[in-house]
Amino acid sequence: MKTVETIAGYREIRSQLYEPIGFVPTMGYLHEGHLSLVKRAREENRTVVVSIFVNPTQFGPDEDLKNYPRDKQRDLYMLESYTDIVFLPSAEEFYTSGYNSWVDIEGITDVLEGARRPGHFRGVATVCTKLFNIVQPTRAYFAQKDAQQLLVIKKMVRELNMPLEIVACPTIREQDGLAMSSRNTYLNQEQRQAAKVLYKALKLSEELYSDGERDANTIRRRMTELIEAEPLAEIDYVSVANAESLQELDKISDKALVSLAVNIGRTRLIDNVVLG
Amino acid sequence: MKTVETIAGYREIRSQLYEPIGFVPTMGYLHEGHLSLVKRAREENRTVVVSIFVNPTQFGPDEDLKNYPRDKQRDLYMLESYTDIVFLPSAEEFYTSGYNSWVDIEGITDVLEGARRPGHFRGVATVCTKLFNIVQPTRAYFAQKDAQQLLVIKKMVRELNMPLEIVACPTIREQDGLAMSSRNTYLNQEQRQAAKVLYKALKLSEELYSDGERDANTIRRRMTELIEAEPLAEIDYVSVANAESLQELDKISDKALVSLAVNIGRTRLIDNVVLG
Repeated sequence: MKTVETIAGYREIRSQLYEPIGFVPTMGYLHEGHLSLVKRAREENRTVVVSIFVNPTQFGPDEDLKNYPRDKQRDLYMLESYTDIVFLPSAEEFYTSGYNSWVDIEGITDVLEGARRPGHFRGVATVCTKLFNIVQPTRAYFAQKDAQQLLVIKKMVRELNMPLEIVACPTIREQDGLAMSSRNTYLNQEQRQAAKVLYKALKLSEELYSDGERDANTIRRRMTELIEAEPLAEIDYVSVANAESLQELDKISDKALVSLAVNIGRTRLIDNVVLG
Repeated sequence: MKTVETIAGYREIRSQLYEPIGFVPTMGYLHEGHLSLVKRAREENRTVVVSIFVNPTQFGPDEDLKNYPRDKQRDLYMLESYTDIVFLPSAEEFYTSGYNSWVDIEGITDVLEGARRPGHFRGVATVCTKLFNIVQPTRAYFAQKDAQQLLVIKKMVRELNMPLEIVACPTIREQDGLAMSSRNTYLNQEQRQAAKVLYKALKLSEELYSDGERDANTIRRRMTELIEAEPLAEIDYVSVANAESLQELDKISDKALVSLAVNIGRTRLIDNVVLG
């Protein structure tokens, strides 16, 4: 495994890498969720590239950029067995003085995470464009856990004709169902117990759906009631939306994305399942 | 010479093309200005790709999209001796239903053409991103004639780390100095004579500069007076700006871009020279 810290350094070795190249962009502080993407990339490609970059442009001014957890040595240790190249660019090289080039995916970024985190998806789309242009992968791997991000990246790649394939990978969960996230480390023991309520609510939506419930309002209401019974949980949103357009549904006919954002103390957690 | 009309068609042959690949994006209705880019690409590359696409997203609602001149057979005939692949995509394939992915280069697009043509550079940056992602050239060739466009594309490629080189080529002029442009065909004989005033004004700025004039206001005023003496000419702007930031100057110290937009009848013409 080789680490590369500059764009020029990566460009230099790019032509020597065997194709296909599988790429996993991360913000580091890796967990089993990330590793599942890296392992999938390993299975499907001759070369595996992982980037670790806490991207400042996808954090809002009041968000956790400064305190976002970092542990480079542990990350490198976890990647060692599966990865050929770890790309660790600097924010200084990525966003030079006077930086002003942005990729905007409109429409589907107006709702859910996009509505609550203005500029977040512009930052995500821009950094992914930059990474794709540098790494030049055959395939890039993203987690279903960040469902709206996955849709944004897929739409961007399709509409801007980027020459790579986006591979969606299932959400990896703790034994009690909590979706793996670097932000879970913010939770104390009591909060960690309360955080189970996200997946419980998503499971409830699956049960209601498999019992034949198709009224989205009923599903949202039942999920909301379940979460409100947890004193440490504060709902940001509970959504039952068209899985492509992300428009909120009245009745479920096609595929629906059930997603939620819940604050547990000061930690904001998101999760989702797809119905149908 | 091969013509390719779909993205999939181009993708199919891309891996068989010899590199380096020189690319000239055009909107067709070719003239000697375009051909100078194509010839330069021919000299510097093993494969030459030219696209012809009248890009709807860079025209404003009141602009000349519908009437923009087109002559595909003549274009193909002109390209024959210098070109390997002519890419002729359709607007339907380029902007599918619900299209919503955009590239925005901010700051330098707030002034000059960007200020007068809202959305123009968003359309240009987006279509160039799409074309670069499809064509995957080693180098792309742009004319100095569209000076702000050239700066926007250079900034975009640099800041989004696109893996190609942008080559700037000098403005090609008619014998009397008028910069070649597909829009020149809109001019009647009398207007064609009046249009000489653009280059006369730019020449005046060069003379003043070489005589030691460094006051930008004086240069703008003298140019304005010269153009105002032509009854068929109506000034949109006369600018003396920093050649990188495009901010208007008081005193010229570094490189300055002298640019202007002038309406001759209903035809809007632009041109520029660089001082220093």
